[in-house]
Order: sequence, then structure tokens, then C-alpha cells
Amino acid sequence: MQIAKTHRVAGGELCYAAHESVATGTQMRLSVFLPGGKGPFPYAIWLSGLTCTEDNFTTKAGAYAAAAKHSVAIVAPDTSPRGEGVADDPAYDLGQGASFYLNATQPPWAPNFRMESYVVGDLIAAVEAAFPLAPRRSIFGHSMGGHGALTLAMKHPRLFKSVSAFSPISSPTRCPWGEKAFRAYLGADRDTWRDHDAALLLESGKAASFDDILIDQGTADSFLANELKPELLEDAAEKAGQKMTLRLQQGYDHSYFFIATFVSEHVAFHAARLA
Amino acid sequence: MQIAKTHRVAGGELCYAAHESVATGTQMRLSVFLPGGKGPFPYAIWLSGLTCTEDNFTTKAGAYAAAAKHSVAIVAPDTSPRGEGVADDPAYDLGQGASFYLNATQPPWAPNFRMESYVVGDLIAAVEAAFPLAPRRSIFGHSMGGHGALTLAMKHPRLFKSVSAFSPISSPTRCPWGEKAFRAYLGADRDTWRDHDAALLLESGKAASFDDILIDQGTADSFLANELKPELLEDAAEKAGQKMTLRLQQGYDHSYFFIATFVSEHVAFHAARLA
Repeated sequence: MQIAKTHRVAGGELCYAAHESVATGTQMRLSVFLPGGKGPFPYAIWLSGLTCTEDNFTTKAGAYAAAAKHSVAIVAPDTSPRGEGVADDPAYDLGQGASFYLNATQPPWAPNFRMESYVVGDLIAAVEAAFPLAPRRSIFGHSMGGHGALTLAMKHPRLFKSVSAFSPISSPTRCPWGEKAFRAYLGADRDTWRDHDAALLLESGKAASFDDILIDQGTADSFLANELKPELLEDAAEKAGQKMTLRLQQGYDHSYFFIATFVSEHVAFHAARLA
Repeated sequence: MQIAKTHRVAGGELCYAAHESVATGTQMRLSVFLPGGKGPFPYAIWLSGLTCTEDNFTTKAGAYAAAAKHSVAIVAPDTSPRGEGVADDPAYDLGQGASFYLNATQPPWAPNFRMESYVVGDLIAAVEAAFPLAPRRSIFGHSMGGHGALTLAMKHPRLFKSVSAFSPISSPTRCPWGEKAFRAYLGADRDTWRDHDAALLLESGKAASFDDILIDQGTADSFLANELKPELLEDAAEKAGQKMTLRLQQGYDHSYFFIATFVSEHVAFHAARLA
């Protein structure tokens, strides 16, 4: 783990860092916030949305005061592998910055776009080795990262104590962003897509180990009806008998201003389950 | 006032806007945060530092939860006039993004670089006409904007109830950033510089109408010794018998992570004096 720079914030320490990932075959960048005091600290992994890097949440979410208050660390990785040898696409919603946090099986993506293995494997191992972190983790994210948090939590429930999301892509098999990305990364066979769809995983009972799932969604979000579709998560939770708290926040949009408004409540939600 | 976009945040409304300034002869951009509830609201003007625009504080400071709590609005203008017809310099510390919040007297800056007149005239008039703001104002800022807040408050004490700063350029007549900018904007005659130097204004008793001045400065700030020199403000306050609270915050640097850590205390400081 190479530390690029550090900043003191909220009585703790923020580190921008990078490490080599075997899963992606690239250097991966991330930020790590460590609260003040003595670790090891439980932590939450934040997954960002389309076009983001490790920097968006870090500079804009204003989450660290709440994290410091609860003595919870936060790890925010980049949203995809990057670099000259890594496949990309000119569109904002495919390729670098748009990994969808899965392991691609199709060319040209398969060699590097292995973000599921990265997050649940290399990332966790690397940050727990390099920083004073306890193996007690939560996961949350925004939009594409909300999809990532929900799917990785349900596919790897033993790794995470809790999961929450802002404005998640609820069912990528049933929206344009998801269908485009899944076709590219996973191929035309839709049966292979089901395992990466939060609503379908939820419906099949995969969230049973979580006592609750917290979802915040702004009602003025321009992607709400066509891409995000939280009603599909709500239906799935009802069918599975899964407790889920979906909060429709009046007038809020898809931006980090929305996240900044409610992030302290998500940190508290996770802190209670990491304690 | 043209509203470019709005975001709901912290139960209030954030507006990115622009208006024509007679003082600068340009369109000036700004952000305005209005807390929830019914105005008119007292407000604080935030002045940003070198290289910044109206966006840095707006997206990174995390100030709006505190502003909402205290029912205080915040107005954050751009740091200089901009545009094709506006003079500029390739250096980051001169020209566009580096106005030093004064009225330039020298070519090529004099026609547009009239930020003192802009802030205390056009900006105040425009925002109070366009938004539900009461004529009760505070002013604060960071680095070059800390210099701007302190000097404008002391030169126009009837306009502002209170003033505070993060990491201000304390005495631009005695540091490289200030000497370079003042020579360019005001000319070689150093006597003309004195009126734009916070420490010299403070020493001459110009802050007498303020019951206290709050200054936060990080001890790990790479500009501390050569550019910022808070000890010059401290000396000046002592000579003038002016109450000033200078807090040296251990380990904090010059970034918005520092600002985000303490901005709620600055908002509370102003809210108490705007009430």
C-alpha cells in the first residue's frame, strides 16, 4: 500500500493511497479515513457511482465528522480499473469509471474488469493489512455503487455486518444503464445477469442475514423512473419478507448534496451494526 | 439574477446563479444556500482562496447542515471576474481566480478587477434583491479569501456583523503572494497597499466594531510560515487591544478537509452575531 498523501480531518486522518490488485491486474486507488483514537476500527466500504473516482465521496460527502463520532473508518475505492492497457469506452456509462462492481466475462473487459473480486478480496485484504482496521465491515454506495453495495453484500453476506444505499440502481437487468453494461461485461445470455441484480437477489432471500437495509432515494432524482426504480427493491423485499427501510426524500436529486444531507444517518446505521 | 441550477440540501435549497456586475463589467457566478423555512434569512458571505471558483466551498465545505440548523444563508461568489475579454496571467496566483478582493488601479487589471466594489456593492445588492435575505451579514473566507473577509469587514464595518477566517493571508504587504499581487494590481507605491492589509488595518483599530474575530489556522499548513503568518495578526490585535481568537489546529493543512472540520463552529460564531 503506497500512501500518496494524508490530510487531517474531523480529528482523524484521511489517506489517499494506491495498491496493486491481482484481481484487476492494475494499480487501484482509494481513500481511507481513520478516526482519531486507537484502532483497530470497524469500517464501512463506500462504492461510488458512474464517472466517479475515489475522490468524489472523499471530498463531497462530508461523512467524516459522523464517522469520527462513531469511531468507524471509511474506505472508498476507485470505481474501476484504469490505465492505458485497460479497456475503455467513450461513453460515460461503460468501461473505466463504470465497472458495475462485477467480474466481466466478455472481451475486451474480462482481463481487468474484475471489481467484485477486487472489492471482496484484494481491497479488504490490503486495507486490513495496511491500516488499523478490524475485520468488521459494512458496505454502502451511490447509484451504480448502491447496486454494487447491495449485490456484493447479498452475494458475500459473511463479509458484511450491514448494507445501505443512496439512489441505487435497483435492478440492472431491467434498466438501460444495467442492460447496456451487463450485455457488454457478461454477454447476451440474460441468465448470467441475474446473479448481479439487487432486486432479484433480494427476492430470492439473499439478504436474510441483514436485520434491515437502509435505502435513501430523492424524489427529484432525474434517473428515478428510468434507471433506479426503487419500487422493484420494495416489491422484492416484500416477497422475501425482508426488512428494508426505503425513504423517499422529497425534492432531493442524484447529487452529492443529497448524499451529504443524509450520510451521517447511514454512518450511524452501520455503526450500530458494527459495534 | 439567473438561476443556473438548484439542489435540495440539508432541508434547504442551494442555487447556482449568475448576474451582471457593473463593478467588474462581467457576469459573476455564485452559489446561494437558503435554509428551510421562511425568510428573510441573515447570511454569511464566503470568500474562497486562490484558484477557487464559487464551487469549491459549495461542494467541499459541508457547511450547510450547520447553516440550516442556525437558519443562516450562505452566499459564495466566484473569486474574480472571468471571461475572454478579462485580463489574466498564466500563474495561479495572479489574474483570474486570484483577485485578492480589491479594486485594481493598474493596467491591464483596472477595468475588471474591482472585486472590493463587487462584494460590498453589486453582490450584496443583487442577492438581497433576488433571494429572501435580510440585510444582516457576516463575512468569512479561506486563505486569499480570509484576507478578503478580514479587509472588507474592517474597511466596511457597518456592512458586517462579524468576521472570521480560515488560514488567512494575514499581511499581504509582507508575503510573496501578497507582494506579487499588490504590485501588479496596485502598482509599485507600497503606501497604496496598506489599506488592503489585514494586519495593518487591525493594528490601526479598524476592527473595533467586532466583539471578536475567529481565526482557525492549521499547524501543518505548508503556506503557514512564508505566506500566512498569523502571528502578524496576533501582534496587531494585541497592539490595538482588539479581541481576536486565533486557534492553531494541530496537524491540519490548507485543504478543505481542514475547513470542513471546523466550518460548523464558524457558522455558529456568525449565527450568534446575526441573531
